Amino acid sequence: MSNARRYDTVSLITDLGSGTDELGVLHALMRDLAADVRVIDVANDIAPFDVRAASLALARLVPYLPEGIVIACVDPGAGSERRLVAVEVGDGAGIFLGPDNGLLATGVALAGGAGRSIVLDRDEHHLAAPGRTFAARDVLVPVAAALANGHDLETLGSPIDPASLLPSVIPIARLENGALACEVIWVDRFGNCQINASADDLHQIDGAEAPVGRLRVTIGSDVRNLRVVESFDALGSAALGLVVDASGLLSLAIDRASAARELGVAEGDQVVLSAAGEETPTSVPVRMR
Amino acid sequence: MSNARRYDTVSLITDLGSGTDELGVLHALMRDLAADVRVIDVANDIAPFDVRAASLALARLVPYLPEGIVIACVDPGAGSERRLVAVEVGDGAGIFLGPDNGLLATGVALAGGAGRSIVLDRDEHHLAAPGRTFAARDVLVPVAAALANGHDLETLGSPIDPASLLPSVIPIARLENGALACEVIWVDRFGNCQINASADDLHQIDGAEAPVGRLRVTIGSDVRNLRVVESFDALGSAALGLVVDASGLLSLAIDRASAARELGVAEGDQVVLSAAGEETPTSVPVRMR
Amino acid sequence: MSNARRYDTVSLITDLGSGTDELGVLHALMRDLAADVRVIDVANDIAPFDVRAASLALARLVPYLPEGIVIACVDPGAGSERRLVAVEVGDGAGIFLGPDNGLLATGVALAGGAGRSIVLDRDEHHLAAPGRTFAARDVLVPVAAALANGHDLETLGSPIDPASLLPSVIPIARLENGALACEVIWVDRFGNCQINASADDLHQIDGAEAPVGRLRVTIGSDVRNLRVVESFDALGSAALGLVVDASGLLSLAIDRASAARELGVAEGDQVVLSAAGEETPTSVPVRMR
Repeated sequence: MSNARRYDTVSLITDLGSGTDELGVLHALMRDLAADVRVIDVANDIAPFDVRAASLALARLVPYLPEGIVIACVDPGAGSERRLVAVEVGDGAGIFLGPDNGLLATGVALAGGAGRSIVLDRDEHHLAAPGRTFAARDVLVPVAAALANGHDLETLGSPIDPASLLPSVIPIARLENGALACEVIWVDRFGNCQINASADDLHQIDGAEAPVGRLRVTIGSDVRNLRVVESFDALGSAALGLVVDASGLLSLAIDRASAARELGVAEGDQVVLSAAGEETPTSVPVRMR
Repeated sequence: MSNARRYDTVSLITDLGSGTDELGVLHALMRDLAADVRVIDVANDIAPFDVRAASLALARLVPYLPEGIVIACVDPGAGSERRLVAVEVGDGAGIFLGPDNGLLATGVALAGGAGRSIVLDRDEHHLAAPGRTFAARDVLVPVAAALANGHDLETLGSPIDPASLLPSVIPIARLENGALACEVIWVDRFGNCQINASADDLHQIDGAEAPVGRLRVTIGSDVRNLRVVESFDALGSAALGLVVDASGLLSLAIDRASAARELGVAEGDQVVLSAAGEETPTSVPVRMR
Repeated sequence: MSNARRYDTVSLITDLGSGTDELGVLHALMRDLAADVRVIDVANDIAPFDVRAASLALARLVPYLPEGIVIACVDPGAGSERRLVAVEVGDGAGIFLGPDNGLLATGVALAGGAGRSIVLDRDEHHLAAPGRTFAARDVLVPVAAALANGHDLETLGSPIDPASLLPSVIPIARLENGALACEVIWVDRFGNCQINASADDLHQIDGAEAPVGRLRVTIGSDVRNLRVVESFDALGSAALGLVVDASGLLSLAIDRASAARELGVAEGDQVVLSAAGEETPTSVPVRMR
């Protein structure tokens, strides 16, 4: 169906790191193989080997990506038998390229689900290279260039059933005894701690006000009452709160300071939200599972 | 006046950080909304919330920026009542977009002063988005795209008096008892410490030679004689000096090493310049205000 | 010979740092001086002053760079009498610009050797600027723009003999008493430690099996037997090994972890490879020169 489409943008999501020649070589090679393609760095400082962080970055980006190709490559299994795949989304408006390790799943779902999918098993479209460790350079960029140069997806690999793709590794918040057990899924550069719950999810909490303006948060032994607000500024000076963030999820935040540092919180930590207590307890130790 | 201009370059100055998807989404969205615009990263590792550092980076860049749009966004007040503005400079050769928090002022002045200015209060040109925290994505990029696509500035917001824009937060060196009281305004990646004085300013110092080749510098309790030179190399091995830097200001520097580390100096620290003493004192403690 | 060539790509290798306005100004200025040129960041987080690291990054990139100009600038001698040069490679397919401090030599050799070469001594093609410290901005970008705009190389400086260019600073592995004395030449973001030897070089080691599947490695007082493999995955959990890396050299690596951290190894450290012992010694102290 997509023979006539032109893929003139390639968005890069990797753990190669800004400023490294490992990222730079992708830009260099793409310019060499498909000179008119615009390559945009959309998230290349993913922590090394962190497939989940890349998956979440892709999910945040999907609503804003231009038509074209996405190379999403955090690939701890490089050189092993894990598959490299290409997945059409949006009726061919986009093609996601990457390892089949769960990275792509959430992004594909948010983009409307998988269309035609292939495994990248046609070596003649890859780069002959020393070593087998650098799939982004040796496979994904050459395949992206081939797509940009007009090759149809199905000429670049063997069809696979999209249902065979590895599922996502992104956790879902759970309701437990009337409280919402969440997880910090992203700490941004400002120290805001995004959790896997939106403002709408808060209505499930037993005894929460409507609309939800105050909550109790339990992080390890740290228990606090805090407000749910719509801007950092609304928190007031030095107060921790939950802000409706730019992804539409909730983030633990402090105005003009790092909530992650203040709380000692990192990605993967558990955060339990329950109805606000009468008084604001000051760090009452509470036993977590 | 500027209806016929095309704005095909957008320069980005932010504290979003290289390699983050928060910066990446600006590139992605701009490509989606105005495909032919060239987006260039000119300074995106400004320290979080540091309006002054962004203001200084903009000031350093102004002499070298191409015609077009500048998005300069360090926005600790995101989501609050602070204004977002667009300011024409250079008779429409440039348009600066950003929060009205003092960030833009020095850059605007260096670009010849403000022309037509608006507050970005026309929601129909913004992106509908969850949360109200990400003005760069939801307001500034869409407005830049509208400008690139040919909308006149005045269709994108209500006119404001440029005199109402918040002034700059950049400090001025002061003459005190014949000495020049300066401040470290920038520590670069090499550890060079730029101060807010040029070689010309040194002639105001009581008792300074002409031309000024040697000075006494007082930083906290650290007092040293040093040379004023035109290249790092001229300092000789391991010697601290003042180098006429690439901005035309003076930088405390050590050849092939970090003056900031050697001196324990950070942005905002005070540096007093006075006439060189007869002997080079070796770290004589001196009381600072 | 190259009058008719167009140089529409400029690849940047510097120690200016991603996200700094020192790197940003190169992009800004190039857009101003030669709007159609594509500027690609291929390695701008080289450690400050580290000419050798830049030289190695250039060497790794050469096989993948598109036709065009390379600005390779790590320039601790900025403002001194060191020369700035332009060197044609590949019969004019590429032109390398940078300081004559050994940075370019290996890249030039890998690109097939130097063609026409000049010293950049024609001030009228440079930018008048305060200070003499920022050659990348004031000399190399303007010269690259002039080349992109159609000026012939020889109009931009005086011819020099390529044999007069400073040689490379990249070390060569040496055979010593039947063992191969190597050096860590690059630690990447993942902690892989690239050494200056390829799998082929291993056959020189006295008593090594053929094909070489196991070796003894001595790093300071740390002595281990390890396997030589073709993917990280093949190492198995937590085991240190030598992987044929994406440059075709060998890298000390651990699957999904940092070998550099595990070994306490940094760029420049010596690594001696010898035939594998019968048993895997556990950190037997061995005296190194």
